[in-house]
Amino acid sequence: MILTFEPNGVKTRIHKGISIFDAAKKTGLHIRSECGGRTTCGKCKVIAKDSSSVNDVTDEERNFLSSLELKSGYRLACACFAKSDAVVYIPEESRLRTRRFLVEGTERHVLVEPAIRKYFVHLEKPSLQDIKSDAQRLMDAIKENYRTNEVKFNLPLLQALPKILRDSNWKVTVTVWNEKEIVSVEKGNTSGKAFGIAFDIGTSKIIGYLSNLINGELISAESMENPQIMRGEDVISRISYANKSDNSLRELQKQATNSLNTVIFALCKKTGINPHSIYEATVVGNTAMHHFFLGISPKNLGLSPYVPAVSSAINETARNLRLRTNPNANVYLFPIIAGFVGGDAVADVIASGIHESDKLSMVLDIGTNTEIIMGNRRRLIACSCASGPAFEGAHIKCGMKAVEGAIEQLSIDLKNGETKYQTIGQAAPLGLCGSGIIDAVANLLRYRIISKEGAFIKSALSSKRLRKTNNEKEFVLLSKKEGAKRDIVITQRDIREIQLAKAAIYTGCQILMKRKAVKPSDIKNLYIAGAFGNYVNPANAKTIGLFPDIPTESIKFVGNAAGAGARMALISKKLRSDATSISRKTSYVELASEPDFQAEFLSAMSFPHRDTSRFESLRDLP
Amino acid sequence: MILTFEPNGVKTRIHKGISIFDAAKKTGLHIRSECGGRTTCGKCKVIAKDSSSVNDVTDEERNFLSSLELKSGYRLACACFAKSDAVVYIPEESRLRTRRFLVEGTERHVLVEPAIRKYFVHLEKPSLQDIKSDAQRLMDAIKENYRTNEVKFNLPLLQALPKILRDSNWKVTVTVWNEKEIVSVEKGNTSGKAFGIAFDIGTSKIIGYLSNLINGELISAESMENPQIMRGEDVISRISYANKSDNSLRELQKQATNSLNTVIFALCKKTGINPHSIYEATVVGNTAMHHFFLGISPKNLGLSPYVPAVSSAINETARNLRLRTNPNANVYLFPIIAGFVGGDAVADVIASGIHESDKLSMVLDIGTNTEIIMGNRRRLIACSCASGPAFEGAHIKCGMKAVEGAIEQLSIDLKNGETKYQTIGQAAPLGLCGSGIIDAVANLLRYRIISKEGAFIKSALSSKRLRKTNNEKEFVLLSKKEGAKRDIVITQRDIREIQLAKAAIYTGCQILMKRKAVKPSDIKNLYIAGAFGNYVNPANAKTIGLFPDIPTESIKFVGNAAGAGARMALISKKLRSDATSISRKTSYVELASEPDFQAEFLSAMSFPHRDTSRFESLRDLP
Repeated sequence: MILTFEPNGVKTRIHKGISIFDAAKKTGLHIRSECGGRTTCGKCKVIAKDSSSVNDVTDEERNFLSSLELKSGYRLACACFAKSDAVVYIPEESRLRTRRFLVEGTERHVLVEPAIRKYFVHLEKPSLQDIKSDAQRLMDAIKENYRTNEVKFNLPLLQALPKILRDSNWKVTVTVWNEKEIVSVEKGNTSGKAFGIAFDIGTSKIIGYLSNLINGELISAESMENPQIMRGEDVISRISYANKSDNSLRELQKQATNSLNTVIFALCKKTGINPHSIYEATVVGNTAMHHFFLGISPKNLGLSPYVPAVSSAINETARNLRLRTNPNANVYLFPIIAGFVGGDAVADVIASGIHESDKLSMVLDIGTNTEIIMGNRRRLIACSCASGPAFEGAHIKCGMKAVEGAIEQLSIDLKNGETKYQTIGQAAPLGLCGSGIIDAVANLLRYRIISKEGAFIKSALSSKRLRKTNNEKEFVLLSKKEGAKRDIVITQRDIREIQLAKAAIYTGCQILMKRKAVKPSDIKNLYIAGAFGNYVNPANAKTIGLFPDIPTESIKFVGNAAGAGARMALISKKLRSDATSISRKTSYVELASEPDFQAEFLSAMSFPHRDTSRFESLRDLP
Repeated sequence: MILTFEPNGVKTRIHKGISIFDAAKKTGLHIRSECGGRTTCGKCKVIAKDSSSVNDVTDEERNFLSSLELKSGYRLACACFAKSDAVVYIPEESRLRTRRFLVEGTERHVLVEPAIRKYFVHLEKPSLQDIKSDAQRLMDAIKENYRTNEVKFNLPLLQALPKILRDSNWKVTVTVWNEKEIVSVEKGNTSGKAFGIAFDIGTSKIIGYLSNLINGELISAESMENPQIMRGEDVISRISYANKSDNSLRELQKQATNSLNTVIFALCKKTGINPHSIYEATVVGNTAMHHFFLGISPKNLGLSPYVPAVSSAINETARNLRLRTNPNANVYLFPIIAGFVGGDAVADVIASGIHESDKLSMVLDIGTNTEIIMGNRRRLIACSCASGPAFEGAHIKCGMKAVEGAIEQLSIDLKNGETKYQTIGQAAPLGLCGSGIIDAVANLLRYRIISKEGAFIKSALSSKRLRKTNNEKEFVLLSKKEGAKRDIVITQRDIREIQLAKAAIYTGCQILMKRKAVKPSDIKNLYIAGAFGNYVNPANAKTIGLFPDIPTESIKFVGNAAGAGARMALISKKLRSDATSISRKTSYVELASEPDFQAEFLSAMSFPHRDTSRFESLRDLP
């Protein structure tokens, strides 16, 4: 027998006794189901084009299908069997889509299953024989037509309801969040249109990703500087500012809210999308950004034992958060692991998928504060290191962010001492972003221009470019004469900064591994996230000892993983429940209270490490 | 064996094998339980004073009791059996209280089971070994100590939480609504203090009842005129006003909110209670008052088929409704039966208890609009009649509200033609309230001063007091000379008003009875609610034909039943779920579309009725 699936026309040969649900699965088509085909969830609705080609409707199906649906040929795929050649239509609401998220070296398929659903209904007009209230009429219609649970109206929706129902001639589309709360009631059929926005509130940058919630597609992204920078460049100084008074906390909150609204406005203007059609938002950020955004005092984040006010995921309406999307939109904030391992780290895990794998993996999210999470599907362990902003280009004489003009790749030619480089946007070189800094230091080390301890070494090779400015040694990587917009140098002080940063990160990794008796080779995937540019050279990163001697082929640079995690959670309810279980099962290690922290940190100041036996693999490098 | 229950010291002789739960029940003590003693709810916690006097702790009990509780001798009463003489302490949280509500002729016992509960907890301070977030720490402590469900914080509570926990040295009392939402977190142990307020928003009067939620006691009541009266005396004229513009609707809403806040303020001032200790409110009112209060346009209430915007019960925070109790207090609005049978009718049913009885009963809530509900525990049927405000004293020349100076009882002495009377507050007579009007008309009828059709009849008796003023006949019930503050008369026009009012009410009753083939004698209880004074004479009410010929001994005047219903629901979660089922199972009859309405109404204009066979019982009256 031939079974044809519409609307895409896929044909498959089946034998008797296989359900439509199983046949679809075998064919590689996805039909929605929560029970996996056990006839208990009622989600796998399909339409049999000819009822004589399939078995009769079963009693179980009657429990889930309305009389209207039965009349229209609706069946449950798991209880429906073809008797002859048959054509089965998979309606929109039963189709599952997956969306591919490509993070360099890792490809994640996320099932498009947003927390909101839209239902179009045509209501009966009230009459003296049918005096149901407007709200009851609407809820009964959704329940009857879509077998939904009881849903809840809020007051502003109730206030608007009577007019919308009558103006639309009783044809409306209802948007429901999480199968329980109504987000909007709109005139006519708007069920094909639903948008959401994922926010990444970084300490320095705020990014918004506007997505289509129907198919999971990214529509457009916008970013802006975090204006809180006026009140401190790093988290700690902003926490101090917030502690000054209720007003200063309110100011930081307002800055966050205004920025998000600026991004929403820009995205809507660019795409022509009405902000009222944005029904959901997700927000990711470190714990301090999270507290600022919610107007919660971060005081205790700055004091040992650094406890957050709240750690579970938060769902709050856009109205209460003053975001200018649909006011009833739910805003989901990622759960938190600890004071300095926030929702961004949870999103890193979601984006990398290490919580789903049997293999042991590690994620580093490198920034002023570097979060490290190690583990697999069974357990996760995390810590946070104060690595400073060197790898984001800050506190480095010629450092800069990974923007146009930044050198992102660099190598020194041993023969002629010339510097080869590549800049972002192919622009004239202006400075070094994180990946350029790593390349520069690795080259200086490789050619013994600096020692293992980080001091400049006089040699034939170095003397050409080594100079002193304001009584400090600096190495000219690229001079103005060679085409740079200014002399691009790396100073002795820069190297100290980098040593401090990389020692902090290495030590964090090392302590987690020690705790769980893990060897570098046990780690099958090392995902490195952060804003240091797209082309980090793994061998160079290892050369400077940024992290333990994990096999180079296991290292993947994944860019803004937190943002990717927020985008994924926006289109997937399942990943939100994953986030909660990640935040609950991750054990946290407070590095400062580890007895071997100080010793480990000092040994890690050397390039790659005082104990070279820890970097066996580097022997093979040129 | 002797079992002693503490703290009240009740002793009872028991035999082996009877659980503490069952023994308490037999003794007339109430222990909290949701499962009725099947060891599945864990609510019947008691403390065995000597663990050797009872059986060992069972595995089922371990599922419900924390280690702390087990150490303190806590047991589940349903799984605990005495082995010898034993003393068992019933702790506060397991004690059930009932509160008696006395409405004339009906005594209702309501189990004190408010929707809020308070939990006192002493938290462990956070440390580097225990970095749980503040919110998580609090929730875990409640769960561990009281076996609660997962509870939810709102944002304002989260914002305040870190400071409260630290200022209170980690000892706080948490108030939880409906076992799911936190209403407040307070310093120290305030678990003995919890207040609530029940509001009755009447078309003319707004009443607030401040109650103690721990023991169910009424603390104080306050009332004020409904200031919406400026925009129309009756519901219909206020609906027209609200329809004028969004601003006029907002004005009515503001008037309602401000009045409730005025009442809250007055009650708190009088009693010294902090408004923040008011954790719950219930609100009852007719459908129009309900819509005004919520800011929902009442437009469709004024147009056939008169559908409300929403009919189910509403739970909204005081913050969103701008009520000045605790801002997180839940405000419960009664569910609605139909456009003109509102939450007040549901509260009437709750107060009279007719939904719990096997006997057939009827409730009349007489006002400008009279709601009639008839039924028993199985079914209920309701209608609404436009009776006009005559029985509230309006549109009657010498009519007045049931306040000081109103004649509430009146009879004419046949021998000397003198009028005997009683006024409210024993003040000099100023006018007639509803009960006085009924007495007056009944006396005029009895002595044939007016005819069955309502016309004044000339006779020896009548001529003394009958006069014409402005060309209209009027009967002087009590002259200024006889001690009244003015001549108190009843005019021909007054009698017409009363005929219209009583015909409307009678017709409503009659049509409901006809629909269900009910005879007057089938009705075992007729509860009459309304603001016409406290001493209505049932025989007189029947003499004028206010309602069908229901046996006089079955008639009970219950005063403000809607207010009593709101007070009962304030202290009883169970009655709120009753309210929902009442509103759902009551079928509504639209009188205007009944074919026999017109004919019934016209016949009912006569006193007591054109068809005297309908009032067999009146033959026995003097």
